[in-house]
Amino acid sequence: MSYINLKYEPSKNDLITEFYVEPSRDIPFKKVAEQIAAESSIGTWTDVATMKYRIKRLGAKVFEIDKNKVKIAYPIELFEEGNISQILSSIAGNIFGMNIIKNLKLQNIIFPEKIVKSFKGPLFGIHGIRKLLKVYDRPLCGTIIKPKLGLNENEHARVAYEAWTGGIDIVKDDENLSSLSFNRFEKRLRKTFNAKEKAEKETGEKKIYMINITAEVKEMLRRARIVREVGNEYVMVDIITLGWSALQTLRNENDELKLVLHAHRAGHAIFTKGKHGISMLVIAKISRLIGVDQIHTGTANIGKMESGEEETKEINSFLKSEFFGLKSVFPVASGGLHPGSIPKLIELLGKDIIIQAGGGVHGHPNGTFSGAKAMRQAIDAVVNGIPIEDYMKNKKELKLAIKKWGLK
Amino acid sequence: MSYINLKYEPSKNDLITEFYVEPSRDIPFKKVAEQIAAESSIGTWTDVATMKYRIKRLGAKVFEIDKNKVKIAYPIELFEEGNISQILSSIAGNIFGMNIIKNLKLQNIIFPEKIVKSFKGPLFGIHGIRKLLKVYDRPLCGTIIKPKLGLNENEHARVAYEAWTGGIDIVKDDENLSSLSFNRFEKRLRKTFNAKEKAEKETGEKKIYMINITAEVKEMLRRARIVREVGNEYVMVDIITLGWSALQTLRNENDELKLVLHAHRAGHAIFTKGKHGISMLVIAKISRLIGVDQIHTGTANIGKMESGEEETKEINSFLKSEFFGLKSVFPVASGGLHPGSIPKLIELLGKDIIIQAGGGVHGHPNGTFSGAKAMRQAIDAVVNGIPIEDYMKNKKELKLAIKKWGLK
Repeated sequence: MSYINLKYEPSKNDLITEFYVEPSRDIPFKKVAEQIAAESSIGTWTDVATMKYRIKRLGAKVFEIDKNKVKIAYPIELFEEGNISQILSSIAGNIFGMNIIKNLKLQNIIFPEKIVKSFKGPLFGIHGIRKLLKVYDRPLCGTIIKPKLGLNENEHARVAYEAWTGGIDIVKDDENLSSLSFNRFEKRLRKTFNAKEKAEKETGEKKIYMINITAEVKEMLRRARIVREVGNEYVMVDIITLGWSALQTLRNENDELKLVLHAHRAGHAIFTKGKHGISMLVIAKISRLIGVDQIHTGTANIGKMESGEEETKEINSFLKSEFFGLKSVFPVASGGLHPGSIPKLIELLGKDIIIQAGGGVHGHPNGTFSGAKAMRQAIDAVVNGIPIEDYMKNKKELKLAIKKWGLK
Repeated sequence: MSYINLKYEPSKNDLITEFYVEPSRDIPFKKVAEQIAAESSIGTWTDVATMKYRIKRLGAKVFEIDKNKVKIAYPIELFEEGNISQILSSIAGNIFGMNIIKNLKLQNIIFPEKIVKSFKGPLFGIHGIRKLLKVYDRPLCGTIIKPKLGLNENEHARVAYEAWTGGIDIVKDDENLSSLSFNRFEKRLRKTFNAKEKAEKETGEKKIYMINITAEVKEMLRRARIVREVGNEYVMVDIITLGWSALQTLRNENDELKLVLHAHRAGHAIFTKGKHGISMLVIAKISRLIGVDQIHTGTANIGKMESGEEETKEINSFLKSEFFGLKSVFPVASGGLHPGSIPKLIELLGKDIIIQAGGGVHGHPNGTFSGAKAMRQAIDAVVNGIPIEDYMKNKKELKLAIKKWGLK
């Protein structure tokens, strides 16, 4: 049977994939495209005696080939609703290892409504988060406690307190801080939550602590429940190293817990970078389906991490777009940012972003409190349409930050 | 502070990583190596005021540089015992996205004893599986039901029955078969389990059904419990699309369930192929730590999937080696195999493997039963030291298979 039909018009029930394809040397392009559609639906490398006529209609169809770009339509029956692991085992599984392929990248997935609706999507979304913080007119401003690891629970809470009172909205654990011998989860939670309440009283602003609950599922859920008991509203997870099945479980439990879910993407670049793998857009789509409320999407080439401007814009645009009624996801820009990055970042990505700076806050010549002030000053300047160079004249924290790191 | 010390001698408590590194254009190699050690332990892109003297000893150390190969030692305090997601967020997280890197591959991890012992490891291992099947002197012989998707529960059970009675030991679901509208999990389990019992009675041999329970965690565990209730001894999961946290949870629950865990690696080649990503050896090590009993490791360049001979041998050798007392893992060769592949495969990989053929069984000119016979005949020939060409003279099933697909 054939898995190519360039005249086929996908139905609204089809799931559609877009692949970038480079065949191994000497293998005809069409053959490779067809084998991708076969292996990711119902076929294998040889005809089998057990194939039945009625099953053939379940075969995926290559319906468009444009240079190295291949579009494939899959009948919805191939997928189990609400099971993202099964969907990925089909369309992002064996095909990457076929020896007829040199490079293969899953660039995009168009999910049909029925599959989208079999997932929960975000509980809060951008609007819910802005309502919680009562901040509607500017980017949210976050910091990651640094050094990544090494502070004890008291030191962690103290640094958080300085950041909050300096003007930071959100304090976040780093991706590798979970529960360590020198900084245990529960003690850190309680100490830092107390510091948060103190900072809220002193500043009159709502403050957020995103504590990292990444762990084996039962332990992760236990930690999430403690967070809720203590009264904290947010948790973060490293979605890539955690895995999709556990993320779905966390989201399911979250109907009860009602925590805002922050998704750190540590490890995504293992496969989002380069010509072989899965695009960050696909990761963002899956994350929205499952239902994270915030996700790191890139900094539009500002900062220490690779993330193209067009790519970041495309992902952020998807996260805010209509998606069969699912709530939006707050895009997070993080990695090597500092006060001097902010004008360009907001120019490129707009105000509906969360800007996080770790080194760019705690690396301030006068420490965390001044670093936090400088970040908030930079955001205020941009939001009020005042050039940083003017605004910093009578803001010594901002001036020192710009002197150290420059203006992007 | 510096993250390079080429005179450092790792202690037995250090975790050691081996990376292949290609810097982005014009970035000095040493700078990149150091930044990898920094970002994966306690550092960031700028010095921070919150760094303390006592924390500096937690910094990772580049202790060997050999052309593009970098070895890094990490103090054990950086890691949470029994939390594989946290370990990977550290050593296989942000570093892959740093813009100073062109390509980066995590080639190997040497785990210290204390970390290894914080995980459970396999419950059965090779010996436990051989004992269950009472087969000690030959490779186990498996098939994947084909077509991958499309058969209903009765048809699935019927094909399984033919495979078992033809001589196959193990029947396995395909990686994308979970619970689908035309083939529901529970009905498939019961029908196929009944067929298994029938085949066992008729052949006098122990037969195995590896049913795919890949799903959101609670649902996965629910399915695992039904498998146990029905009396079936095996389950399979797609470990990559499932994710590490959920796999740990399944293994933890398995202290009670006592199921043999088969790990399908669909999707591994998203990152194990090429010069950027994580090696299959690392995936195999993590899987053994967590405690799968069987894992797909490659076919030594025979078949439809890319998998080099040296790489497959190295992984299989690790799975059988001493690993601080953890049980061994049965290596599985699968993907594009058929009876003609078997002599070469056993020559390269030895007898302690599970050989799976899907198309190579059900694609037999006379169907599944004959295909199963041909597979078992090929294994018997090799184990008895008889060349296939001679053995097939009075074995018509094997003869037909070799005629269709050739001898490797």
